[in-house]
Amino acid sequence: MKVLKFGGSSVATPARIQSVIEIVKPLLKGDIAVVFSAFGGVTDNLIQVSHLALQGNLEYKTKLAELEKRHLEAVRELINIQRQSGILAQVKFMMNELEDVLHGVYLVKERTPRTLDYVMSFGERLSAYIIAEAFKDRGHAAEFLDARKVIRTDSHFGYAKVDFETTNKLITEYFKHHQDVQIITGFVATSESGETTTLGRSGSDYTAAIFAGALHATDLEIWTDVDGMMTADPRKVKKAFTVPQMSYEEAMELSHFGAKVIFPATMQPAMVNKIPIWIKNTFNPTFEGTVIHAESKNGKMIKGISSMNGVSLLSLQGSGLLGVVGASMRLFATLARENVNVILISQASSEHSICFAVENEYAHRAKVAIEKEFQYEIRNEEIDEIPVETDLSIVAVVGDGMKHSPGTSGRMFSALGKNGVNVVAIAQGSSERNISAVIPQVDAAKALNALHEAFFLSDRK
Amino acid sequence: MKVLKFGGSSVATPARIQSVIEIVKPLLKGDIAVVFSAFGGVTDNLIQVSHLALQGNLEYKTKLAELEKRHLEAVRELINIQRQSGILAQVKFMMNELEDVLHGVYLVKERTPRTLDYVMSFGERLSAYIIAEAFKDRGHAAEFLDARKVIRTDSHFGYAKVDFETTNKLITEYFKHHQDVQIITGFVATSESGETTTLGRSGSDYTAAIFAGALHATDLEIWTDVDGMMTADPRKVKKAFTVPQMSYEEAMELSHFGAKVIFPATMQPAMVNKIPIWIKNTFNPTFEGTVIHAESKNGKMIKGISSMNGVSLLSLQGSGLLGVVGASMRLFATLARENVNVILISQASSEHSICFAVENEYAHRAKVAIEKEFQYEIRNEEIDEIPVETDLSIVAVVGDGMKHSPGTSGRMFSALGKNGVNVVAIAQGSSERNISAVIPQVDAAKALNALHEAFFLSDRK
Amino acid sequence: MKVLKFGGSSVATPARIQSVIEIVKPLLKGDIAVVFSAFGGVTDNLIQVSHLALQGNLEYKTKLAELEKRHLEAVRELINIQRQSGILAQVKFMMNELEDVLHGVYLVKERTPRTLDYVMSFGERLSAYIIAEAFKDRGHAAEFLDARKVIRTDSHFGYAKVDFETTNKLITEYFKHHQDVQIITGFVATSESGETTTLGRSGSDYTAAIFAGALHATDLEIWTDVDGMMTADPRKVKKAFTVPQMSYEEAMELSHFGAKVIFPATMQPAMVNKIPIWIKNTFNPTFEGTVIHAESKNGKMIKGISSMNGVSLLSLQGSGLLGVVGASMRLFATLARENVNVILISQASSEHSICFAVENEYAHRAKVAIEKEFQYEIRNEEIDEIPVETDLSIVAVVGDGMKHSPGTSGRMFSALGKNGVNVVAIAQGSSERNISAVIPQVDAAKALNALHEAFFLSDRK
Amino acid sequence: MKVLKFGGSSVATPARIQSVIEIVKPLLKGDIAVVFSAFGGVTDNLIQVSHLALQGNLEYKTKLAELEKRHLEAVRELINIQRQSGILAQVKFMMNELEDVLHGVYLVKERTPRTLDYVMSFGERLSAYIIAEAFKDRGHAAEFLDARKVIRTDSHFGYAKVDFETTNKLITEYFKHHQDVQIITGFVATSESGETTTLGRSGSDYTAAIFAGALHATDLEIWTDVDGMMTADPRKVKKAFTVPQMSYEEAMELSHFGAKVIFPATMQPAMVNKIPIWIKNTFNPTFEGTVIHAESKNGKMIKGISSMNGVSLLSLQGSGLLGVVGASMRLFATLARENVNVILISQASSEHSICFAVENEYAHRAKVAIEKEFQYEIRNEEIDEIPVETDLSIVAVVGDGMKHSPGTSGRMFSALGKNGVNVVAIAQGSSERNISAVIPQVDAAKALNALHEAFFLSDRK
Repeated sequence: MKVLKFGGSSVATPARIQSVIEIVKPLLKGDIAVVFSAFGGVTDNLIQVSHLALQGNLEYKTKLAELEKRHLEAVRELINIQRQSGILAQVKFMMNELEDVLHGVYLVKERTPRTLDYVMSFGERLSAYIIAEAFKDRGHAAEFLDARKVIRTDSHFGYAKVDFETTNKLITEYFKHHQDVQIITGFVATSESGETTTLGRSGSDYTAAIFAGALHATDLEIWTDVDGMMTADPRKVKKAFTVPQMSYEEAMELSHFGAKVIFPATMQPAMVNKIPIWIKNTFNPTFEGTVIHAESKNGKMIKGISSMNGVSLLSLQGSGLLGVVGASMRLFATLARENVNVILISQASSEHSICFAVENEYAHRAKVAIEKEFQYEIRNEEIDEIPVETDLSIVAVVGDGMKHSPGTSGRMFSALGKNGVNVVAIAQGSSERNISAVIPQVDAAKALNALHEAFFLSDRK
Repeated sequence: MKVLKFGGSSVATPARIQSVIEIVKPLLKGDIAVVFSAFGGVTDNLIQVSHLALQGNLEYKTKLAELEKRHLEAVRELINIQRQSGILAQVKFMMNELEDVLHGVYLVKERTPRTLDYVMSFGERLSAYIIAEAFKDRGHAAEFLDARKVIRTDSHFGYAKVDFETTNKLITEYFKHHQDVQIITGFVATSESGETTTLGRSGSDYTAAIFAGALHATDLEIWTDVDGMMTADPRKVKKAFTVPQMSYEEAMELSHFGAKVIFPATMQPAMVNKIPIWIKNTFNPTFEGTVIHAESKNGKMIKGISSMNGVSLLSLQGSGLLGVVGASMRLFATLARENVNVILISQASSEHSICFAVENEYAHRAKVAIEKEFQYEIRNEEIDEIPVETDLSIVAVVGDGMKHSPGTSGRMFSALGKNGVNVVAIAQGSSERNISAVIPQVDAAKALNALHEAFFLSDRK
Repeated sequence: MKVLKFGGSSVATPARIQSVIEIVKPLLKGDIAVVFSAFGGVTDNLIQVSHLALQGNLEYKTKLAELEKRHLEAVRELINIQRQSGILAQVKFMMNELEDVLHGVYLVKERTPRTLDYVMSFGERLSAYIIAEAFKDRGHAAEFLDARKVIRTDSHFGYAKVDFETTNKLITEYFKHHQDVQIITGFVATSESGETTTLGRSGSDYTAAIFAGALHATDLEIWTDVDGMMTADPRKVKKAFTVPQMSYEEAMELSHFGAKVIFPATMQPAMVNKIPIWIKNTFNPTFEGTVIHAESKNGKMIKGISSMNGVSLLSLQGSGLLGVVGASMRLFATLARENVNVILISQASSEHSICFAVENEYAHRAKVAIEKEFQYEIRNEEIDEIPVETDLSIVAVVGDGMKHSPGTSGRMFSALGKNGVNVVAIAQGSSERNISAVIPQVDAAKALNALHEAFFLSDRK
Repeated sequence: MKVLKFGGSSVATPARIQSVIEIVKPLLKGDIAVVFSAFGGVTDNLIQVSHLALQGNLEYKTKLAELEKRHLEAVRELINIQRQSGILAQVKFMMNELEDVLHGVYLVKERTPRTLDYVMSFGERLSAYIIAEAFKDRGHAAEFLDARKVIRTDSHFGYAKVDFETTNKLITEYFKHHQDVQIITGFVATSESGETTTLGRSGSDYTAAIFAGALHATDLEIWTDVDGMMTADPRKVKKAFTVPQMSYEEAMELSHFGAKVIFPATMQPAMVNKIPIWIKNTFNPTFEGTVIHAESKNGKMIKGISSMNGVSLLSLQGSGLLGVVGASMRLFATLARENVNVILISQASSEHSICFAVENEYAHRAKVAIEKEFQYEIRNEEIDEIPVETDLSIVAVVGDGMKHSPGTSGRMFSALGKNGVNVVAIAQGSSERNISAVIPQVDAAKALNALHEAFFLSDRK
C-alpha cells in the first residue's frame, strides 16, 4: 500500500488536476490511497467569506458565489457532459449547506471555532469529491472517502487531537470492505460527538500520514510544488539544490527554521511506523525529489542549511541571578504561560545568564511577562531589565553526519567570520545534528550563501 | 577607604602573618580595614573535629588539642612575651567554649547546622583576634572587630542571607565611633535572634565586599596565593599568564567554569558600588595582579579561557516533543525541584530537543527525575528515554571584546577542528562574552592549549 | 425617589397591565422609576423557541409567530388606534431582528450563552417598550429606558456580574438628563464590549434594586402575585399568614429554604443602602404586604417557618478521621470543585464526623467525588464509605428575636418530638436567626403545621 | 491474650506498684502482656529538666538528682536486698546516659525534638524495667520489653506515625520467641533509622492498643484512676455515675468534649480488631468499670453528657456571601493552614452564614486569618467582619440509641429552655449519636445538671 497526498497548489486548476491524474494513473493497478487538499486558495477563501459574514458584510455572498462558480467550472472541465448533471447538483447541494451556515453566522454574528471548522471542511470535501468523480469519469475504480468517517478526534476545534486507537481501527475496517482506490479528503475529521473538526496546519499531510500509519503503507508520497527538500532556501541561495535523501531527524531539523516543505508533527505517524516519505514535485514529476527515512544513508556530513528571519533575542541576566532560586524554571514557566514559542535557548554559565530567541512578534510580550515575574528581583537589582535585540536571523547547518566530524563548527564559524558576520548567539544540542547561530538579519543572505558555499560547493569543486 | 582581605593560605603560619603585616604596614596611615580568614586549614579542621564528636569518636579531643596548640604557638611567635599571657588566656578561654560545644555534640549525638556554624566561627574569631594583637604589639593602632557585631543575616545556617539594610547601617555607625584600623573576622555574622551564622563558600571575600560596599571603599583588595586572574588554568596550560584588568562580567564568566580565584556572588556588594577589586598575591606582593572593574579598558578581544571537567550532557528529545505542552517548563521545574545545577543549556529547535549539561554526579539523578516527570510521554514514545553522555568537559572563551568581533567563534572552532576536537554541544548567550563548547574530557587539555595558542600566543608573536 | 418593579405575572395580559397602570398612576406626580419583567411566560417561550431552532425543528417559526401575535395584540389593546401603527411597526421590527438570530441558530446549529442572552433580552425589551407607550398613550410623561444603556456588566453571559462603579455613574448621569418617569427593562444589561447580557435568576428584581441603590431611592416596591412574605408556605400550612415586617436578614433566611418570594442576592443593592423593600401583591394592591428593612421592629420572636423538600444527608466519618489532615478542607474543596451546593452543615465533634445536606439530585455526585478524594483513607478503613440518606426535608424556624429567647429550641424540638417527628440532623448558627432541622420528608407537612401551631397560633389564642 | 496498661498515677509510688502487682498476679497464669507508663509525674519532670538545661540553668542537675533518687528508692523498696545491686547499677547507668545528653543540651544550647524524645523515653524505660524486676523478684516469669525493639515509626519526633505492617510483624515474631510475661514500656518506639521516637499524647494507651491489635488480644484493659466512663464529668455533676458499657463510637463522642478518660485515636488498633476495651480503676480494682465494644448492648438512649468550656464561636456571614465562590472551602482551607482545630460547625443556609466553634485560644488567630483571606470581600461589604463570641461552653448528649428516638432533641432543649439557658448554636450530625449545643459558659454547670437530671435521673425515679 502506498499513500499519496497532493497539496492545494497541485490541484489549483482543472489542468493541474488533470496532471495529477496522469501522475496517479500508472499506480492505479497497485494498492494506493490518495489524499487531497482543497483546491489552491480555497481554504483561505472560506475563512475570508466566513469573516465577512461575521462582520455583517454582505459581500460574503459575492465571494461565495465565486467559490461556487470555481467548483462548478472544475466539474464542467473535468467531467464528461453526460455525467455532469448529478455531480453539479451535488456540488450545488453542498454549496447551499455552506451558504446556510454562513447566513447563520451573518445573523447571529458569531463564528465559533466549531463553526469555522465546519466551514473550512467544505474545501476538502468539494475537492476530493470532484477529483474522485474525475477519476471515475476516466474509468478508474475510484471512490470518494470523506475522512470524517474514519478519523476520530477530540473536540479541540481548529487543532483537534487524533484518537489513534479508534482511528486506526476504523481505517483498517473501512479498507477491508472497500476495494476501490480511495480518494480521501485531507484536513477534516470528526469528534466523538460527531462534529466536524480539522487537524490544524498542514492537516492534509497529517491525514496522509495517518492513513499511511494505519494501513502500514510501504511509502508515503507528499506531492507538492517544489523539487523536494533543498540544501537551502532557493529564494535566498541561488545555488541551492535538492537533497536526495535524509533521515527523519534531519528533515525535522531542516523544517524547523527553513521553508516549511513539511511540518514536523505531520510526519509522526509515518516515523513511528518507519514509512519512507517521498517529497515529490507535481510540476516536475519525473524528478526523484527527496526521500526521508529512518537512517540517513550517505556520509555527506551536512544535509542542508535552514534559516529564519524576524527573530529577537532576550536575556535573563544580572549579578544576582545566581542567588535566585529556580530562575530558569520560572523563566520557562512564564514563557509557557504566555504561549511564547521559544526557538533557541543558550545558557553558557550556571543560571548566570540565560539567552533565548523568539519570533519578533512575541518579543515584547515575553519581555513584559518576564519582567513582571521577576519584578522583585529587578527592583533589588539582582536581575537586570530584560534586554531585547530584534531583527535577527537564525542560520543553522543540519546533518546527522556532523556527529563524528570535528571540523563542522570550525568550518561554519570560519565561513561566517571571514564574511564579517557577527554571531550574536550560538546553540548546538547534543544530538549534533544542528548548529544554530543567531546573526543580524541584514547579514542573513550573505551568511546563508557563505555557508552554502563552505559546505556544499567547495566540496563539489 | 580601602578594604583588604587575606585568605587562609596567606595566614597559614606565623611567618606568613608576619609577611601580611609587612604588606599592610605601609597602608596603615591611610584609611583601611582588613578582613582575615581562619588560619589555613583551620575551618576544615573544625568541621572534622565536630564530625568526630558527632560520631562519638573521642579522637576529637586530640584534634582539638592540636588546634589549640597551633593557635597558642601563633600567639607565642607573634606577640612579645610581656603581652602574651592575657592573649594566651583569651585564646584558651575561647578554646574552652569550643570544647564545651563539641562535648555537647558528643553527648547529644547531633550537630545541627546552627551548631556547625557556631563551631566554624571559632576559626576566624581566633585568627583575627590574634592578628589584631600582633598589630597592636607592633605599635599599630589596630582593633579587633568580631563581624558578628555588625553583619546581620537571616537564620539559614550554613549559607545565611545578609540583611544589607541593617548591616550597612550597623557598619557605618560602628566605623563612626572606631578610628583605629579594624581587623575583622571574615565569614561570620549574626542572625536577628543573635545566633552565630556563616556566609557560605568564600565567605571571607564576601565579608570584605560587604564592608567595602557599606563604607563606599575606593578599593577592595583580595590577597590570595595566585598572581591574579589568569588567561587559563596554569596547571593545564603552561603558557597561561595573568590578565592585568577585566570587567566584573568577564571575571564572573571566567570564574564560572575555571579555577575559582573569586566566587562570583561575593563580588556583588563591590559591583553594585562599582568598587575596583584587586586580586593580589601575598607571596608575590609587588606583582600588580589583576584589577576587576566596571569597564574592561583595553581592546583585547578575549580575556581568558575557562574550563571545567566532569560534565555530563543530557537531552530531552523525541518525535512527539513538539506536541508536549510546556516541555521546557516541566524540564526545568523538575531540575529545580531536584536541586540539579544546570551548567549549560542549548536548544536549537523549538522545544524539539533540549540539551543541557550538569556535573557528572548529578547526571543520574537528573535522568531519573526527568524520566519520571515525562513517564507518560516516554511510554507513548512521544519522548525518548533521556540519553546521557558523561565524561565531558566544557571549555569557554571569555571576553567583553568579542561582541563586535565577528571572527571569534570562527577562530575558536577552527582551532578545535584543526586539532581534531569533536564538539558535542555549543552555547553562546547574547551577552557575547562567552562561547562555551562541550567536548570529550580526554581532549580537554589539548583543546585548552590549542585555544590558548589561538587567542593569546599567536597575537603576541 | 421610589423604584417599583412588576413581575411577569403582573403584566401577563393587557388587562393586568391596565391594573398595573392604575396602581402606578397615583405615584406619577412623585419621583418614581418602574422596572418591568417580560410578559408572563415570555422568557420561557424565548428559551423554548431558540431550543427548537437549535435542534433544527422548524416548529420554532410557529412558536415565534405566536409570540409576535401576543405582543402585537397587547399593543392593539393598550394603545389608542391612532398611535398604534408606529408602535406595531417597532414591535415587528424587533421581532424580525429576533427571527434573524433564530434563523442563524437554526443554520449554524449552535446557541452560545451569548446568543441565548440576546434572544432572552427581547422579552423585557418588548414588554417595557409597549408599557411605556401605554403610559404615554394615557397622557403620562413616561419614557422607555432600555437598561442596557446604563447597566454595565462583565461578559459572563447568563449570569453577568454588575460593574457597580460604572453602572451607578451611568444611571445617575442618565436620570439627571431625563425628567420623565422611566419605564425600564428588567433583567438585561450590556457588557463592556457592548454585547447584551442578562442578570440571572430574578434578574428584574435585581435591576430594580440596582436602580434603587444608584438613585438612593427611599423605597423599593416589588409587586408580585402573593400577599408578601408568609409565616409558612401557604400551600403546606393552611393557617399561614402574612408577616407585616421583618429585617433583611430574616428575609434572607426565610427565602433560603422557603417559597422564593424574593431571591436573596437581588436584595443586596437595597440592603447596602438600607432602602426598605416592600413586597406587594398586584392582585390585592390595597393589602399592606410585607416591608423588609434594616431592623426588625417588633419583638415577635419568630417570623416564619421555611421548609425545603428533596434533601439528602451525607456524612464524612470514620474511626481514623481524627488523624486525616485537613479533612474538612478537603471535603469542602471537593464539593466546591463539583459545584455541589451545600444547604446545611453540622459537625458536632472535632473533624470526627461532618454531616451535610444537599439537594437529592446532587447526592450521588457528591458521594462519588468525596469517595474518590478520600479513596486512600477509605481503603485503609480510616474513613467509612459515605453514607447517604435521601428523601429528607429541612424545616427551619426563623426570626431575629430568638437570639435572647432561651426557649425557642426547646419549643421547636418539643413540638417535633410530641408529634413523633424524628430529627436526623440539626444546625443553628450563631446568628441565632435560624434553627434548622433535617427530618424525613414524609413527616414534613406534619412538622410544618406543628411548628406553625407552636410558634404562631398558640400565642394568638 | 489480654493486654493490660497501667497509667502513671497507677505506678506513682512503690506502694501503688505493689497494688498493681496484686492486680496482675491472678492473671499471670494466663496469656497476658502489660504496658506501663512512666512513674506519675516523671515525663513532666524530664521535660522540665531538659528545659532547664537548654536555658543553661544548672538547677537541672539538682532536679535530675531528685529523679535518680526517686527511681533508686523505688528499686530499694520493691526489690529484695540481695538482688538490688545489679538493678541499682543498671538504673544508675541509665541515669548517667541521661545526664550526658542533658549536659550536651546544656553545652550546645539546643534541644531538638529528636533529643526531647530521647530524653522522655527514659521515663518508661526506667519504670517498666524496675517493675519487670519487681515481678521477677516475686518469682514471676516476667521479662522487660523495651518497645523500641518492636514498634517501628516514621521520624516525626514528638508524634511519630506507626508503620503497622512492620510493627505487627515484629511484635508477633517477638512473642513467638518469648514465652514469659512481657512488661512493656509504653509511649516509646524507634524510627526506621534506629532513633528513639515517642507516640504523642496518651502514647502508652496507644502502645497497649498496638500490642493488642498485633497479638489479636481478646481484651484490652486500660487501668487508670477513675471508675470508668461516667455519665458526666463528676467534678461538675455530683450525681454522675459510671456507664457500664458503650460502643466505640459513643466512647469517641464522649471523649471529644468531656474528661479525657481515653484519647480516641489510641483506640483505633483495638477498634479495627473489635477488641473490647475495659476502663478499670487501679484504686478500686473490684469495680467493674466500663467496657467499650463494637455494639452498644442495652437500649438506654443516652450514654452520657460531655461538656467543654473555653469555647468561642465565629461566623462567616454577609449579604454577599452567596456570590462568593467556594466560601466554605476557602474558610476551612484557611483554618487548616492555620492549624486551628474546629470543634463544631453549623451552617443552616446555603453558604449564607457558616458558624463554627474553636477553643478560646484559637479565636483571635482564626478571626485574623479569615479576615485576611476574605479581605477583598470584606472591603466590598460582601462579607462582614468576623464576629467572635467567647466564653462559651459546649454541652452534648451522646448515645447510639437516640437514633430512633424522636424525643431526644425535644427533651434536651426543653430542659435547657426551662432552666433559662440560651442556646447560641446547635449541631447534630446524621450519626445521631450526638446533639451539641453551644451555651454561655456561665450557664454550663446549670445546663449540665439539668440535662443529667432530664436524661438519667428522671428515668431512674
